[in-house]
Amino acid sequence: MKIQGQPYRTIWPTPDGSAVEVIDQTKLPHRFEIRRLATMEEAADAIRTMVVRGAPLIGATAAYGLALALRDDASDEALDRAHDTLLATRPTAVNLRWALKRICDAVRNRPRETRAAAAWREAAIICDEDVEICRRIGEHGLKLFREAAAKKNGATLNVLTHCNAGWLACVDWGTALAPIYMAYDEGIPLHVWVDETRPRNQGASLTAFELGSHGVPHAVIADNAGGHLMQAGRVDLAIVGTDRVTRNGDVANKIGTYLKALAAKDNAVPFYVALPSTTIDWTLASGDLIPIEERAGTEVTHMSGRLPDGSLATVEITPQGSAAANPGFDVTPARLVTGFVTERGVCATNEQGLRSLFPEGAAPKP
Amino acid sequence: MKIQGQPYRTIWPTPDGSAVEVIDQTKLPHRFEIRRLATMEEAADAIRTMVVRGAPLIGATAAYGLALALRDDASDEALDRAHDTLLATRPTAVNLRWALKRICDAVRNRPRETRAAAAWREAAIICDEDVEICRRIGEHGLKLFREAAAKKNGATLNVLTHCNAGWLACVDWGTALAPIYMAYDEGIPLHVWVDETRPRNQGASLTAFELGSHGVPHAVIADNAGGHLMQAGRVDLAIVGTDRVTRNGDVANKIGTYLKALAAKDNAVPFYVALPSTTIDWTLASGDLIPIEERAGTEVTHMSGRLPDGSLATVEITPQGSAAANPGFDVTPARLVTGFVTERGVCATNEQGLRSLFPEGAAPKP
Repeated sequence: MKIQGQPYRTIWPTPDGSAVEVIDQTKLPHRFEIRRLATMEEAADAIRTMVVRGAPLIGATAAYGLALALRDDASDEALDRAHDTLLATRPTAVNLRWALKRICDAVRNRPRETRAAAAWREAAIICDEDVEICRRIGEHGLKLFREAAAKKNGATLNVLTHCNAGWLACVDWGTALAPIYMAYDEGIPLHVWVDETRPRNQGASLTAFELGSHGVPHAVIADNAGGHLMQAGRVDLAIVGTDRVTRNGDVANKIGTYLKALAAKDNAVPFYVALPSTTIDWTLASGDLIPIEERAGTEVTHMSGRLPDGSLATVEITPQGSAAANPGFDVTPARLVTGFVTERGVCATNEQGLRSLFPEGAAPKP
Repeated sequence: MKIQGQPYRTIWPTPDGSAVEVIDQTKLPHRFEIRRLATMEEAADAIRTMVVRGAPLIGATAAYGLALALRDDASDEALDRAHDTLLATRPTAVNLRWALKRICDAVRNRPRETRAAAAWREAAIICDEDVEICRRIGEHGLKLFREAAAKKNGATLNVLTHCNAGWLACVDWGTALAPIYMAYDEGIPLHVWVDETRPRNQGASLTAFELGSHGVPHAVIADNAGGHLMQAGRVDLAIVGTDRVTRNGDVANKIGTYLKALAAKDNAVPFYVALPSTTIDWTLASGDLIPIEERAGTEVTHMSGRLPDGSLATVEITPQGSAAANPGFDVTPARLVTGFVTERGVCATNEQGLRSLFPEGAAPKP
């Protein structure tokens, strides 16, 4: 997608192939800065500190990270070590694991001297595939948007989203936001309620930044507001991304997703989850088995933003001495989700629905 | 309650009776500052800018505001004008209207020269009554806490609350927090999850400040986290305050309350609403008739806190050009609320329940 008219992906190799570059998402929406990742450690750190975030982009960054590790040491032991280091950066995202496995599978039976180059090529393929998968998710979601818009008789379609499942979370396009961009581009009158998504504000910063850059009308709201807006008939459709979907259709996503899904159900608002099939964890029977990352309390007690003079600052909002708890994700039961929007179409939120689109039951190529 | 060992109310007349003083709650938890209100306009402004907030304290401040107005001009016209100005400060709070009416009733049939003094006395009585009402709410709520604690067999009782319904919202004690203080004081092992309550952070600032000052163990959480904590069995009981309860038991409270009530229902967590009977709006049949205050978008786009050097600052968290919407309250349907905790006991959340405790169907004296 474009920033100030210039097309970008979220991750790309440098021209000389010595490193990858990413957009530092911790600086958005206040600064647009590029970060160079030249070693596995730098890639792992970028994931850990959320310089890059979003399940697909985490996977792509980890893939390049593994390729970078193999340049220093292409032994099986080094491969395993790098794999484990990268896997430990974010415990909830399932296609982090998937991407790492894919690189490992691509190199393990090769001579050591060809491993790094093969991994680098495979990481690039993962990125290209992700772009194509997101484009297809957008096209399938677009059909739902057209149907919802048709019911509005020309009135603005109000869409609610939580966190950031846009192109900044992927390599390009995004998952939940891909159909929003496509609907907007084809002239469907559209307005997006953007949950700010405390504690890290990915909605207020990243989603608002993305939508604003593309010109999509939107308003940032406190995470508390979505239920009221639904009660008031001011939300026609909700769509979010996910970090992991279990075999039965339970959805792990950014903390707070469950609350919005409950409100959507209570007010008969369709609630869709957009995902690449790499996000499906066929090994887990249900959502209660998903490990939930507990993140630092300082994400709750402190808030970053822009001072009136334009400089960035972090303020503490709680009393000194107050503790904070910070679970990063919650699990939305499949029963609350209207449908999954995938690269192969829309399906029911249960194992039968998932298998109907992905009978191979594993991460497919598009 | 006490701050650094010294007992305070949230509003008190100056010794010479020329003004009232309040704690400036916009400065908490970072600064403890007293604000003097010497005119009706200053009282109205204190309510409007949330120097004072919380339904009972808004009522008490408005009562004193009306008394101050009568010192300048005790005519019927001036009384009506001041009444209307004060009533317009916060449209959702019902006992603002109740307190103003009570002052008007107390003075209207008096000679003009005695009106100001009578209003002042009545405002003081309103304050004293509020303290007694909150104490009784605490005692009735305490029974529920004892029962819930008994089921825990000595394990810590985990309580969730939203916004601030503590003594800072009242004259003393608080509504939802009164039983928490009493339970803590009698040695029930207790831990409170404090919703930060965006966009104004009354939980992260005021509730955390109150609980910390009293020594009650607590942790601030993002408003998104409560659903997950309930799913994980980490919440035994939720209790909140309210700005207005309609005759059928629907509850207007700080935006986001509805989402927590939905999650409580979905996880069979008891969800109580604590209220003085002055909060009951007998004139409204149901919650959809309650006007919902739309507040400034800057409350969403900006956040105040303490910089590392201790100074206070406000940072902007959204991209320049992004709009924000900011409904201040939502309505929790009566069906999601386990019980009302009032100064006369606990009742069912319907008209029959409310009438069983308040057969007179109007704001009673305790």
